Amino acid sequence: MFTLSHVSVRFRVECAYLGTPYSGWAKQPNKPSIQASVEVAIATVLHCSLADISTVVAGRTDAGVHALGQVFHVDVADHVILRPALVARLLKRVNGALRTDTIVIHSFEPAVEGFNARFSALSRRYEYRLADHQAKKNPLTAQHTATSPFVLDGEAMNTLGQALLGLHDFQAFCRPKVGSTTIRTLLDYRWVRAGDNVLVATLVADAFCHSMVRSLVGAAVSVGRGKISVDDVLAARARGARTDWWVTMPAQGLTMMGVAYPDDGEVALRANETRRRRKAAD
Amino acid sequence: MFTLSHVSVRFRVECAYLGTPYSGWAKQPNKPSIQASVEVAIATVLHCSLADISTVVAGRTDAGVHALGQVFHVDVADHVILRPALVARLLKRVNGALRTDTIVIHSFEPAVEGFNARFSALSRRYEYRLADHQAKKNPLTAQHTATSPFVLDGEAMNTLGQALLGLHDFQAFCRPKVGSTTIRTLLDYRWVRAGDNVLVATLVADAFCHSMVRSLVGAAVSVGRGKISVDDVLAARARGARTDWWVTMPAQGLTMMGVAYPDDGEVALRANETRRRRKAAD
Repeated sequence: MFTLSHVSVRFRVECAYLGTPYSGWAKQPNKPSIQASVEVAIATVLHCSLADISTVVAGRTDAGVHALGQVFHVDVADHVILRPALVARLLKRVNGALRTDTIVIHSFEPAVEGFNARFSALSRRYEYRLADHQAKKNPLTAQHTATSPFVLDGEAMNTLGQALLGLHDFQAFCRPKVGSTTIRTLLDYRWVRAGDNVLVATLVADAFCHSMVRSLVGAAVSVGRGKISVDDVLAARARGARTDWWVTMPAQGLTMMGVAYPDDGEVALRANETRRRRKAAD
Repeated sequence: MFTLSHVSVRFRVECAYLGTPYSGWAKQPNKPSIQASVEVAIATVLHCSLADISTVVAGRTDAGVHALGQVFHVDVADHVILRPALVARLLKRVNGALRTDTIVIHSFEPAVEGFNARFSALSRRYEYRLADHQAKKNPLTAQHTATSPFVLDGEAMNTLGQALLGLHDFQAFCRPKVGSTTIRTLLDYRWVRAGDNVLVATLVADAFCHSMVRSLVGAAVSVGRGKISVDDVLAARARGARTDWWVTMPAQGLTMMGVAYPDDGEVALRANETRRRRKAAD
């Protein structure tokens, strides 16, 4: 396994992918993953070993979750020869080496000093598309839209979203992970009815813990179908325990839309701050 | 083969489909088609033979072409028993019998007297999505978006579209078919840059002859990349012969968006008028 070296070269990469054929971002033995696909493509273009490169993503996505604005950094070991002519063509070459329409690299640039795709991030933005009983089913967008058999009250769902904002312990929405904090700042959570009457949620937080987005969507669905009230959800959050009042919604409807970073001069500071804060919480 | 009978019952059906897995609307031996899929589903629900039903579509789509607002009618032989309770549930039952996400029925209603999905239509509307060199490639919409390696001038393409409108002989854009007219009224043809910088064309005509939409898009691409001028296209249309100045663009980017019909009281009149006009032209 390649270990981070101070003499390695770091690139910042933006990409998009259809999650359907993958078992998620993270590489796993004998399963297709976005991480393995991009690492193989990069190693192919750089004529280096997979052990010479290492990637870290801003928002690890689960199996079947899509991305339009994913960001990762890739460290290349210092003994790999990077000719300037090759560096200038990395975007084109890596896209070619991917040999698929399901993953697209949008930019591939040397990272500024101190940039870390995960720890420099200020916030992550996700979108959830849900076709309910009122929606006109659209086979062209079915791959990235979940369905609900119920008639859902989008306004009530939006009211819930707004009521959940702020700095809170979101344990009731997180799959437990030993030694990790579930305190997060939910910066935005809104629902709108879009074209074809599909409900679309936008969620922004400093970071999301595992299954948090899909659990927040599940809570909104339970409110939208009138099973529970906004106050019920707030009470459950206050109790801080998982509940069966709502389900974790399917991955299919979820898309990672983007990551916000501070200005170039601030990325190192932000990365250190995030690491310190995570350590303190752990 | 079932032949139209005056005692058969006619339904008007609206549907959407992803064209990718199909060899087009029209049924063909040993190939998957939308027509065969919907006919099998309808026959299954009605517990009748395939010979007892017959469908006619508003806009026959080629292999790989999608639809969001397709309309067809289906005639059911009079000896098939249609209980009212079943008729009320046809939409749900046929969608269930389709057993796929790639075809969705949006409405399934008894047709008004004299309605004919093909001949009563006033106009057909198509959309063509094209990601050119400026576009941000989007893997979530790649299935219904064609790509062009060129940087395209969307404004020039829109200028061409507007210049082509009106009643003309579109032979230069049509695959020849013996005994058929190529005179059509192009009611709208516009290009806009949409989100992600994808170029989207809207085309409306009373009817399109075979390959006409994709050929009109090909002409716009040749203008958009600066290979030929708007006047060149108009001159080619005036000559009325196929040209190699442009290509027929791939099916992947094309979606049948909708069909316009007159008010219920006028559909029979319109159908007779269309039939008379087509016969006169042949």
